[in-house]
Amino acid sequence: MKVYLAGPEVFLPNAREVLDRKIDLTRRYGFTPVAPGDLEVPATDTKRAKGFAISSINERLMTSADMIIANLTPFRGVAADVGTAFELGFMCARGCPAYAFSNTASNHFERVSRLYAGRILGDSQDRPRGPDGLAVEDFDMVDNLMLDGGIEARGGVVVTREVEAGRLFEDHRAFEECLRIATTRFLR
Amino acid sequence: MKVYLAGPEVFLPNAREVLDRKIDLTRRYGFTPVAPGDLEVPATDTKRAKGFAISSINERLMTSADMIIANLTPFRGVAADVGTAFELGFMCARGCPAYAFSNTASNHFERVSRLYAGRILGDSQDRPRGPDGLAVEDFDMVDNLMLDGGIEARGGVVVTREVEAGRLFEDHRAFEECLRIATTRFLR
Repeated sequence: MKVYLAGPEVFLPNAREVLDRKIDLTRRYGFTPVAPGDLEVPATDTKRAKGFAISSINERLMTSADMIIANLTPFRGVAADVGTAFELGFMCARGCPAYAFSNTASNHFERVSRLYAGRILGDSQDRPRGPDGLAVEDFDMVDNLMLDGGIEARGGVVVTREVEAGRLFEDHRAFEECLRIATTRFLR
Repeated sequence: MKVYLAGPEVFLPNAREVLDRKIDLTRRYGFTPVAPGDLEVPATDTKRAKGFAISSINERLMTSADMIIANLTPFRGVAADVGTAFELGFMCARGCPAYAFSNTASNHFERVSRLYAGRILGDSQDRPRGPDGLAVEDFDMVDNLMLDGGIEARGGVVVTREVEAGRLFEDHRAFEECLRIATTRFLR
């Protein structure tokens, strides 16, 4: 069973090392890892052509995979990396089992509340909103309901764990827990 | 042809009004609009159950649609709304034509550079990185390459336009331009 390893680890200075560690762990649990960056990007003339080439490779890798484990740890803000969210949606539409983890224990509502410095008020329908008027999802979910919902609908779970600040993308325990849970479902 | 209208407009204080305007415009261009919030959410016991119910309705609406127009205007930070990114990936995996717009003219690289207060340095391979070491995608793209790439691969485009700050989610000209472009491709 091939598992696509989605997440913003590709942006890390030590991306290769961190991805290799995840690849190694995935194999140990009996799955075949498929990770962005596995294939070589062909030479291109423009920046855009290079971006498209990488996108095309990643889509091909996803299409070859049977399952996804997505890293939803907040990236440059309060929410998951949008590339990872795209990939999660992609694999959900393909009907693949989806798992995810986040290396922070705070849920979506808590993080957005912090962004608004706690200034959340209920509107006339008691729906929580920030001072900018934008509704704040309050569904006991790790991120936007499409992400948590897509995973749940495909029998997966989102594992969360508070880790050391300096090891946000290098603590693999929540990722490993996803592998372990998937093992009980798909392998013996 | 049914068009799924993805975007963070659902969070606005005047969400219904803004969505109705987009629905109306979509019809005027000869398409059938499908928007999150079109169906009633059944009563549920818990917050999570409610979130799952909404996710399930939105997935059903997407599955009924033939095309997506996604609003990638940055939401609570430098990137698109992750729910919208999930939905874009979902529709791309279904092989549907995908269009998007953003009501800011700045691209991904410019926005992340601003987030890092301009402190971007090239690494040993001349790849731009922020002071936190994270690579900054520099592909002349509106957002993460999976989003721009997924749209391009399905014959779509991303329309950008700088709008008045106060009308970030109420200026529909870039959205309308997506409709117009899709019309030339699918309708006569």
